[in-house]
Amino acid sequence: MSDFNDWMRTVQAQVETALAAELPAAGHLPARLHDAMRYAVLDGGKRVRPLLAFAAGELTGAAPERLALAGVALELIHAYSLVHDDMPAMDNDVLRRGKPTVHVQYDEATALLAGDALQTAAFEVLSRHVLADDPRTQLRMIQQLAQAAGSRGMCGGQGVDLYSVGHQLNLPALEMMHILKTGALIRASVALGALCGTPLGADDAARLDHFAKCMGLAFQVVDDILDEEADTATLGKTAGKDAANNKPTYVALLGLKGARDKAAELQAEAHAALAPLGARARRLAELADYIVARRH
Amino acid sequence: MSDFNDWMRTVQAQVETALAAELPAAGHLPARLHDAMRYAVLDGGKRVRPLLAFAAGELTGAAPERLALAGVALELIHAYSLVHDDMPAMDNDVLRRGKPTVHVQYDEATALLAGDALQTAAFEVLSRHVLADDPRTQLRMIQQLAQAAGSRGMCGGQGVDLYSVGHQLNLPALEMMHILKTGALIRASVALGALCGTPLGADDAARLDHFAKCMGLAFQVVDDILDEEADTATLGKTAGKDAANNKPTYVALLGLKGARDKAAELQAEAHAALAPLGARARRLAELADYIVARRH
Repeated sequence: MSDFNDWMRTVQAQVETALAAELPAAGHLPARLHDAMRYAVLDGGKRVRPLLAFAAGELTGAAPERLALAGVALELIHAYSLVHDDMPAMDNDVLRRGKPTVHVQYDEATALLAGDALQTAAFEVLSRHVLADDPRTQLRMIQQLAQAAGSRGMCGGQGVDLYSVGHQLNLPALEMMHILKTGALIRASVALGALCGTPLGADDAARLDHFAKCMGLAFQVVDDILDEEADTATLGKTAGKDAANNKPTYVALLGLKGARDKAAELQAEAHAALAPLGARARRLAELADYIVARRH
Repeated sequence: MSDFNDWMRTVQAQVETALAAELPAAGHLPARLHDAMRYAVLDGGKRVRPLLAFAAGELTGAAPERLALAGVALELIHAYSLVHDDMPAMDNDVLRRGKPTVHVQYDEATALLAGDALQTAAFEVLSRHVLADDPRTQLRMIQQLAQAAGSRGMCGGQGVDLYSVGHQLNLPALEMMHILKTGALIRASVALGALCGTPLGADDAARLDHFAKCMGLAFQVVDDILDEEADTATLGKTAGKDAANNKPTYVALLGLKGARDKAAELQAEAHAALAPLGARARRLAELADYIVARRH
């Protein structure tokens, strides 16, 4: 695993550098808005989505420079969704990645605009640089990210989440919500990383997508377990919040042991999907283990 | 002018049809979010940005189907910015296009998500369909829209506007704010329309861009005049709001007559920029006159 940890740290550093370079400089006017954008994105987060893109890129021999840019776009979308999700009209949260949330550190209007501009920046990054040999592939990457982020993906999942507070969701409904809210962007992360390199055949692409679907759900199941188990300091965000808000979680529906079993099942299914892809899928397999074993 | 009015109505109808088709169906889950998105976009607005795209497309022989899709993307960006701008954290406005604003009709969280998803939908539309013969041109269209909408364009202009409330802006600072806040998207509208067809030479492209810059400012000067002159019923949004909020306006800086003179100057400069482009620029010239003469 120390080799994996080295790889992870290298990717995280590459993505951090690319994020800092792609975001407008802090002093650029209006400075308060650009400060807030950088505050929301830099020095924080595990960069799970870029890690998935880099790992998938190993399957297709993708260049690290391209993967870093794809990772930037994914992380900008993720960061924008957190900024807006934390706002008083949504989850009204004050702590994120161990720091005050953007609307607390700045103000609500700035958080609104910073989130908006971070989303736009994701699409600017994906269109300004060359990320694929065939520009039609690059258009497909933009389309996949937009679909994953929009009202039939992440944003729709947040809507389902919002409108389900205080309602009892059964397991299929909870799963559908998370497939949209977290799963869609994780699936897009894997797809975008692979598309930076030599195109996969249809069968391998389907295997990779199946892996990504399992990872999306596993990620959320583990999030729910951590939200139940961990304390706020370890988590870097308010713990126990979902239960307090009467939000449906895997732990609430399956119990702690049931949720842990579910995560292990999804992990095994993800590994099985990768098996025919051979040695090139090693980082993806390691990442699956990391995502399920993580403590925050 | 009746020929122009017919053209305008035809374009508006085409754009309305394309918007209704591109937006997710109202019943699609989560229904409240998709309802709100349709509410924010359909049956309202003059569709100035799509009209500019169609008029610019006449210069390059662009197909109406492509122009309608470019118009949809522009209008989705415009609509998202209005939804977020009207929210309590920003302008806190209750009336837009003669109807309650989205956060009043639905709720704040829905307005936040609907605005987010409308922005995403703009980039989905520009990447899912074929809008240019060369896919690299289409990537350029996406890049230009993202740049115009982001923190160094429209969103940045809203930031400058926000942080200037209660401050005295001089004329160059006011102009810079509007170049970002309104001008950037109007410039992108003209550019995107032209890019749907046969590429212009560099000189003609520069002329067209100069026209678009004049139009962006003229549009805002006329907005300020109307905000001062018109009543709320004619305007379909709260009148006199900028003065009441102590926001800087052209009328405040130049007086009513000075602002009218400024609009006329910009109109003349726009016409001059078009002159070398010949008869193909007729719609653009007519549209410039319409934008300056409009009463709401």
